[in-house]
Order: sequence, then C-alpha cells, then structure tokens
Amino acid sequence: MTSKTTPSPVLNSDQLLEHWQGHRALTRRVIEAFPEEAFFNHRIGGMRSFSDMCKELIAIAGPGMKEIAGGPVKSMNEDLDLGTEKKNFLDAWDETTEIINREWKKVSKDRFQEVIVNFGLYETPVWGAILYYIDNEIHHRGQAYVYLRDLGIEPPNFWER
Amino acid sequence: MTSKTTPSPVLNSDQLLEHWQGHRALTRRVIEAFPEEAFFNHRIGGMRSFSDMCKELIAIAGPGMKEIAGGPVKSMNEDLDLGTEKKNFLDAWDETTEIINREWKKVSKDRFQEVIVNFGLYETPVWGAILYYIDNEIHHRGQAYVYLRDLGIEPPNFWER
Repeated sequence: MTSKTTPSPVLNSDQLLEHWQGHRALTRRVIEAFPEEAFFNHRIGGMRSFSDMCKELIAIAGPGMKEIAGGPVKSMNEDLDLGTEKKNFLDAWDETTEIINREWKKVSKDRFQEVIVNFGLYETPVWGAILYYIDNEIHHRGQAYVYLRDLGIEPPNFWER
Repeated sequence: MTSKTTPSPVLNSDQLLEHWQGHRALTRRVIEAFPEEAFFNHRIGGMRSFSDMCKELIAIAGPGMKEIAGGPVKSMNEDLDLGTEKKNFLDAWDETTEIINREWKKVSKDRFQEVIVNFGLYETPVWGAILYYIDNEIHHRGQAYVYLRDLGIEPPNFWER
C-alpha cells in the first residue's frame, strides 16, 4: 500500500504497453492508408514527408526501448536505409513491435521512476521517455491525417486502436 | 509495496497532472501563434478550423475532469458560444486549467483504475479517459502545426512544455 502522502499510481506497466501498442497499430494503418508515392512525396508547408516522419518514429521506439531495458546508450540515428517502398517501412514497424514486447519484459518495476539520459541527450524519468515516444508519434500521425485529407483520403478512426 | 505478481505502477497522479498541464500550456501557445482570422477560417482538405477543434478540446477537458472527480455524468457539448475572438478561447482555456487543478485534488488514489462511462458514452478506466483527453489534444494540435506551416508560421517547439 502507498502511504497517504504518496501520490497515487495511475496506471501499471501492462496497461502502458497495451496503450502504446494500440497507438502503434493505428499508426501502422495510417501508413497503409497512404498511396505508395504520396507516402514518400506528399508535403505541406515545407514539412517532411510522412515516410521521413516514420523514420524518426522507428529510430526512436525500438532503440529507445532497448536503452530503457538496460541496453547500451546510443545516439539516435534517423538516417535509416528503408528504401522507397512502403513495405519496408511496414516490416520495420512490425519488427519494432516485437522489439518493444520483448524488451518490455526486461524492465523492472522500479525502472519507470528512474532518471535516464535517453539517447545520451535527453534527461528524463523512464515513464516520461515512454510517454514522449507515444506523444511524438501521435503528433506526427496527426500531421499525417492532414496529409491524407489533403489527398482526399479518409484516415482511420483516431479512437480505434 | 506491490506484490511481485502485480504489474508495476508507471507514474503517479502528480506526474500525470503536470504532464497534462504541460501539454495544455503548449496548445495554448499554438492558439496564440495563429493569426486571429486564420484561427477561425484556415482549413485543409475539408477539415475543421483549429478554433472548432479547440471547442472540442475545451468541451472535453473541464467537463470530463468534473465527472472524473465525482460530478454528474453529462453529455458532451462542443457547441460552445465562444464568439469570433481568440481571446475568448484563451480565457476558456485558462478557466479549464483552473478547473482541472481544482478537480484533480478531489480524485482518490483508487479512482484511476475505476471504470466509468465518460460523458455517458465511453466506457473506460479513469486513467484511459485522461490519456484519451491528452492524446486527442496532441492529435489535433499536430494538425494545427500543419495549418501554421501552411500559413508560413513557425509553430512552438513540440518538446517545450
């Protein structure tokens, strides 16, 4: 039991993993919704293509999770060689799903409140790192929704995970 | 102490409140970044103006928090009379900030794992309701970033809260 002066825990690790993977499943459907060429070329206002945003998301999630699980601290590398086919991105996405599930099991119960220097740059408690990964994905996926609407394509429902 | 078979708590209520209000502070700066007219009129691909999205966010956060804190279950009302000046939206935003801080203090430590029927429609644990409010705000704010870029305006940094 927590004492009366300790703030209450909000959610547990199983719930956070399911929440994260639910968001990642939705983002996967957003990648699928893009026409092959638009995934690599469509842009608004000088922003990146959604494929470039996805490189960032893939560069963060798997390597970030490995570091959280006790792996070595490495700098972030968004310059991924994923070619010019959506299929490669979907494969990398699915590989990341497996990495997250596998590494998650190695995370001890006290780890979430430990402070790390994620990617050797970002000082944050582990819970904050994971929420940042999720929030950053939602942020860029929201942008992808505008790209899809601009292309005349109905995006997947935001609330379906 | 939790037993070994109980999944670990990830973050506590104080941390979640600070996380949420940090996001809300960023969204407030995004509202401020819009030119007065574009806030009400700029659209891409048949989507809503950011002012209409903000009505949704304001309709969710304060009333949702009141319900979570034990207030009556009311249906959601996005049809807010906020006029055609950004100032009214910023005032409503600030009022919501105070409502959240005030109502948060009424939430008991076991409440986050209780299941509610939020707004009489959405069955969810309380932690899931709050994360949905945050996620939905990030989603629409990400869309507002595209609107701003499309208008040639540099948005506030995503990582500054």
